[in-house]
Amino acid sequence: MGYTLNVFKRDHHSVGIIGAPFSKGQPRGGVEKGPNVIRSAGLADKLKAQGCSVKDYGNLCFEEVPGDEPVGRVKRPGAVGSANQRLAHAVYTAKTEGHTPLMLGGDHSLAIGSIHGHAAAIPGDLSVVWVDAHADINTPLTTHTGNVHGQSMSYLIRELQSKIPVIPQFSWIKPCVSAKDIVYIGLRDVDPEEHYILKYLGIKVFSMTEVDGLGIARVMEETCDYLFSHVKKPIHLSYDIDAIDPSLTPATGTPAVGGLTYREGVYITEHICQTGLLSAVDLVEVNPQQGTTEAQVQSTVDIAVDVLLGCFGRRRAGNHPADYCLPEP
Amino acid sequence: MGYTLNVFKRDHHSVGIIGAPFSKGQPRGGVEKGPNVIRSAGLADKLKAQGCSVKDYGNLCFEEVPGDEPVGRVKRPGAVGSANQRLAHAVYTAKTEGHTPLMLGGDHSLAIGSIHGHAAAIPGDLSVVWVDAHADINTPLTTHTGNVHGQSMSYLIRELQSKIPVIPQFSWIKPCVSAKDIVYIGLRDVDPEEHYILKYLGIKVFSMTEVDGLGIARVMEETCDYLFSHVKKPIHLSYDIDAIDPSLTPATGTPAVGGLTYREGVYITEHICQTGLLSAVDLVEVNPQQGTTEAQVQSTVDIAVDVLLGCFGRRRAGNHPADYCLPEP
Amino acid sequence: MGYTLNVFKRDHHSVGIIGAPFSKGQPRGGVEKGPNVIRSAGLADKLKAQGCSVKDYGNLCFEEVPGDEPVGRVKRPGAVGSANQRLAHAVYTAKTEGHTPLMLGGDHSLAIGSIHGHAAAIPGDLSVVWVDAHADINTPLTTHTGNVHGQSMSYLIRELQSKIPVIPQFSWIKPCVSAKDIVYIGLRDVDPEEHYILKYLGIKVFSMTEVDGLGIARVMEETCDYLFSHVKKPIHLSYDIDAIDPSLTPATGTPAVGGLTYREGVYITEHICQTGLLSAVDLVEVNPQQGTTEAQVQSTVDIAVDVLLGCFGRRRAGNHPADYCLPEP
Ligand SMILES: [Mn+2]
Ligand SMILES: [Mn+2]
Ligand SMILES: [Mn+2]
Ligand SMILES: [Mn+2]
Ligand SMILES: [Mn+2]
Ligand SMILES: [Mn+2]
Repeated sequence: MGYTLNVFKRDHHSVGIIGAPFSKGQPRGGVEKGPNVIRSAGLADKLKAQGCSVKDYGNLCFEEVPGDEPVGRVKRPGAVGSANQRLAHAVYTAKTEGHTPLMLGGDHSLAIGSIHGHAAAIPGDLSVVWVDAHADINTPLTTHTGNVHGQSMSYLIRELQSKIPVIPQFSWIKPCVSAKDIVYIGLRDVDPEEHYILKYLGIKVFSMTEVDGLGIARVMEETCDYLFSHVKKPIHLSYDIDAIDPSLTPATGTPAVGGLTYREGVYITEHICQTGLLSAVDLVEVNPQQGTTEAQVQSTVDIAVDVLLGCFGRRRAGNHPADYCLPEP
Repeated sequence: MGYTLNVFKRDHHSVGIIGAPFSKGQPRGGVEKGPNVIRSAGLADKLKAQGCSVKDYGNLCFEEVPGDEPVGRVKRPGAVGSANQRLAHAVYTAKTEGHTPLMLGGDHSLAIGSIHGHAAAIPGDLSVVWVDAHADINTPLTTHTGNVHGQSMSYLIRELQSKIPVIPQFSWIKPCVSAKDIVYIGLRDVDPEEHYILKYLGIKVFSMTEVDGLGIARVMEETCDYLFSHVKKPIHLSYDIDAIDPSLTPATGTPAVGGLTYREGVYITEHICQTGLLSAVDLVEVNPQQGTTEAQVQSTVDIAVDVLLGCFGRRRAGNHPADYCLPEP
Repeated sequence: MGYTLNVFKRDHHSVGIIGAPFSKGQPRGGVEKGPNVIRSAGLADKLKAQGCSVKDYGNLCFEEVPGDEPVGRVKRPGAVGSANQRLAHAVYTAKTEGHTPLMLGGDHSLAIGSIHGHAAAIPGDLSVVWVDAHADINTPLTTHTGNVHGQSMSYLIRELQSKIPVIPQFSWIKPCVSAKDIVYIGLRDVDPEEHYILKYLGIKVFSMTEVDGLGIARVMEETCDYLFSHVKKPIHLSYDIDAIDPSLTPATGTPAVGGLTYREGVYITEHICQTGLLSAVDLVEVNPQQGTTEAQVQSTVDIAVDVLLGCFGRRRAGNHPADYCLPEP
């Protein structure tokens, strides 16, 4: 009641939640529990309390893929390929039904399906804001680990396709993002090969060095100036919780010291929300089994929720409905 | 000795400490212990060591008010009204005796009496810098909880009085602050109704979003530019310890994530001290019973003390007396 | 392999590690273990992995000095004097053999020998960037404690020598740094006498107040603008781990609240590395006995290592070799 006052009409989103309990883009169990722990922290009710409509599509079911041998270095191509194809359909459906898809991972390999489905549902191109400690842009030929959550972007970028070998299980993927439409924020653990790829493609990167040097406000201004310099495209925000400092969000698989503060992490979402162009969101790599205490898991999940509330209209300065009248005695 | 060298003569303050062990502006016990735990951390000695005179007026005694039923939603109006009336007299006395009143709370409802007494003791108007996670500006008609520590400012602002119903126990209060003379810093948990009031009155607010966007240095510059744009009025600094991040100051009743860092919290005080216009200070909402460990209480109290040392002349760059001579062999 | 790709050829350093297990510039045992705990965290391998050559000169041996009575207030002048003389030779040797000396302390009194030996090995003057919570610039006549780790700079600055009494055990020291060639970063616990000396000599200081006010990026820009305004001199970086906030690096003898973040601490080194002028480094005051848990020691040591990796070429944005070729299918 009081709470539903909290948001102007123009900030109202209809959020389409899609749970993607998938962990086979990386080796650690537990990240498949991400969707449910984030829901249990009250995500839907909090979104509604700030004026959003919410449709929860539930969790996707991902089949076992027997005999899922590596293709080259790429591990579990069958499971990753089919899960992402299913997710792509789900995101496409949510988007075409008028919702802003919110994909709760699961590991970051799921960005393949999420971005693919999002791109399929809109007329022109989309832009991608990738908030992460990692670039996740290794090709199947440069990856050291073979884990697809470190390769997601490589399958999606048009300009990189001559470097991508055929992987039959991924043959449904159509590259759908231009290198010039991508901005990275928060990088601090980048493989040399990834660094080469980022430079080779001329991709815009705000590593933690730039976040320190410019401050998060100017990073976000420059992000939007850059993305909006030609055409204002819908934004796909792919948010890896490990972008935030592991002292705050330790329950994740590949933590990296020196991350974003809570305030920076939320500021990013407030800024992107205010552009009015946010068109789909991923929140990935929350892994409750990676926390060593319940408090660590709770902190990780609570911050994930606050990140998402920021995406969908929450402002720390507060808000009030356009038609509010102050009571008089 | 060595330590008393630490401050230039021009920074000398005469601090009049007033303990206000009052908790009935909110529901949690323990905040009435604030004045004594802050004193026990060595506040007076540390102030003297940095060159201040200190007069400790001791703790005020607040009487029990029997049959203190709510007036409308407003809880314990009798206790809150009489405590603040007593505090107003004490602050008035300390100020007219030549001291800079330092009110140690207790809860933030005490700002009513503190600002009231301060205003009565000076010829013209005062300005208010309110450092807090919360705006504490609900009217008796908008409050959800009825706790007066969330309404303090509403009773003091001249332009808001048509919205304030009669509360007999508060009839002694004369609104004494203009909306244009108020600056808020640190807000991040603002009710929709409060947000409306802030906009309606055109009050200057630096929420955590603005602290993130501008940086604390520009926030303080803009605060002073704003307050000093016409006449330089004496500053009443009302500092709620919950402005600081709860990871640092957890022993408080209504913690809110995403707060000021220690450094920002201290920078605010250094900057205000250097204006030479600081005329009275409140430090409120330290509640030793809200800490879950002794270390949490200690951290909260230590930071409260450092905030106050910053108010009264401490500089992190150091300082030396004007007449110091370097010894030679 | 993969890792050695991580650095451009032009960033290659040849690092000459010199362990200085010395604690007699201050009263707490344990800091003599600093060199070995930092080595055990994999320093040399990590430096090699980012493309550096490493020569480890091992630990210096410091003799017992019997009957080492104070001279005036100065404690253990015999031990401090002879250890630093030995260290000066070692740094001189490493430098003349073509390495960038990296002195692992030990306490900060060792900067006397390290800077002395560095200065002797280069043709002109050097500049000093002193990253510390403390100024360590008391003279033998102003020190309150007598500990030499709080006096190191006073023996080295030419303009201060008329204020320095004769200490026979220090007679080998030739002042070798000009006041105008020094920049302090991170100060927040400065004695009044030290503050006088800093002003008297006109030394450039970025205390935590300035770090807050300007941001670390502008602090580093102004540091370099200042140092390079006339001639670009080789930089001696003397890094006291207590510059970093004690919540991150608690295992040190004189922690001071309100310190640098991990990111600021690393940013400083990235920036200085990129000048191409870094000529010698001290990393001092890591004291594993001051940590109360193993995690506290580990955090302190890990951050010390990251600071050093930043000095010698690590960039958070990543890097790749100039001749890298992206593999094609
Ligand atoms: Mn990722
Ligand atoms: Mn990541
Ligand atoms: Mn308050
Ligand atoms: Mn508050
Ligand atoms: Mn030092
Ligand atoms: Mn120090």
